[in-house]
Amino acid sequence: MELYTPEYFMNEALKQAKTAFEEGEIPVGAVMVCRNRVIARAYNQTEKLTDVTAHAEILAITSASDSLGAKYLTECELYVTLEPCVMCAGASFWAQLGGIHFAASDPKRGYGRMNENLLHPKTKVSRGLMETEAKELLDAFFRKLRK
Amino acid sequence: MELYTPEYFMNEALKQAKTAFEEGEIPVGAVMVCRNRVIARAYNQTEKLTDVTAHAEILAITSASDSLGAKYLTECELYVTLEPCVMCAGASFWAQLGGIHFAASDPKRGYGRMNENLLHPKTKVSRGLMETEAKELLDAFFRKLRK
Repeated sequence: MELYTPEYFMNEALKQAKTAFEEGEIPVGAVMVCRNRVIARAYNQTEKLTDVTAHAEILAITSASDSLGAKYLTECELYVTLEPCVMCAGASFWAQLGGIHFAASDPKRGYGRMNENLLHPKTKVSRGLMETEAKELLDAFFRKLRK
Repeated sequence: MELYTPEYFMNEALKQAKTAFEEGEIPVGAVMVCRNRVIARAYNQTEKLTDVTAHAEILAITSASDSLGAKYLTECELYVTLEPCVMCAGASFWAQLGGIHFAASDPKRGYGRMNENLLHPKTKVSRGLMETEAKELLDAFFRKLRK
């Protein structure tokens, strides 16, 4: 049995998103995987830190670079529960991320709505893994917010 | 005599860029101005922090939000010595920046090369203020690097 599957990593990202949910943050979680090992975990903390840049992806990139002592994350793959925004896509470009796997799409704020590819040419992308779970968490958050 | 002119603020950003230069960082500096007062100063620290997200603009936004206790910087204007990249444009979108003034253009990595406007619709932009000084500093840095 292979433990460290993409599903395993995305589920770890989803756990981070659930922590965000519990703390009243928009529930987006991320983990950075390097050579089949999780080297960073993060969730959206824009409210807690009063900082629009504190997206899960930015925090995961910063934390992964700190862990590896390297600016470039060419051998790392980011698992994130929501399609990255333009800011996070730009950050992943600079980090030269090896790969991005995202669960739910974000037609309104995702980087994919841009005509140009904002990612680094070396960054491989996959989407849709555990999309239902990620989306349900986001929907539950916004339903709660509107009450 | 008006002390707090756009030239004054851009010169403060340029001082930050010079500090970056002295520390071996790509010399980009920024200040955040709110109601005619500098509330944050920052320079590029990607090398020192081993973090691709540590651009002057990101650090200035984070610092300004910390100073004001507010995520949104609608009454703030960012003075930065180089045209922001996609990541920083995306961050300024989330912060709903009132304005961005940049000195030198960045045809290769600036946000302006994208067909879409990546900035918030409320963000006013001016460019070219003290461009020569900002560009000279960058050119001097890359000349030194190539030696």
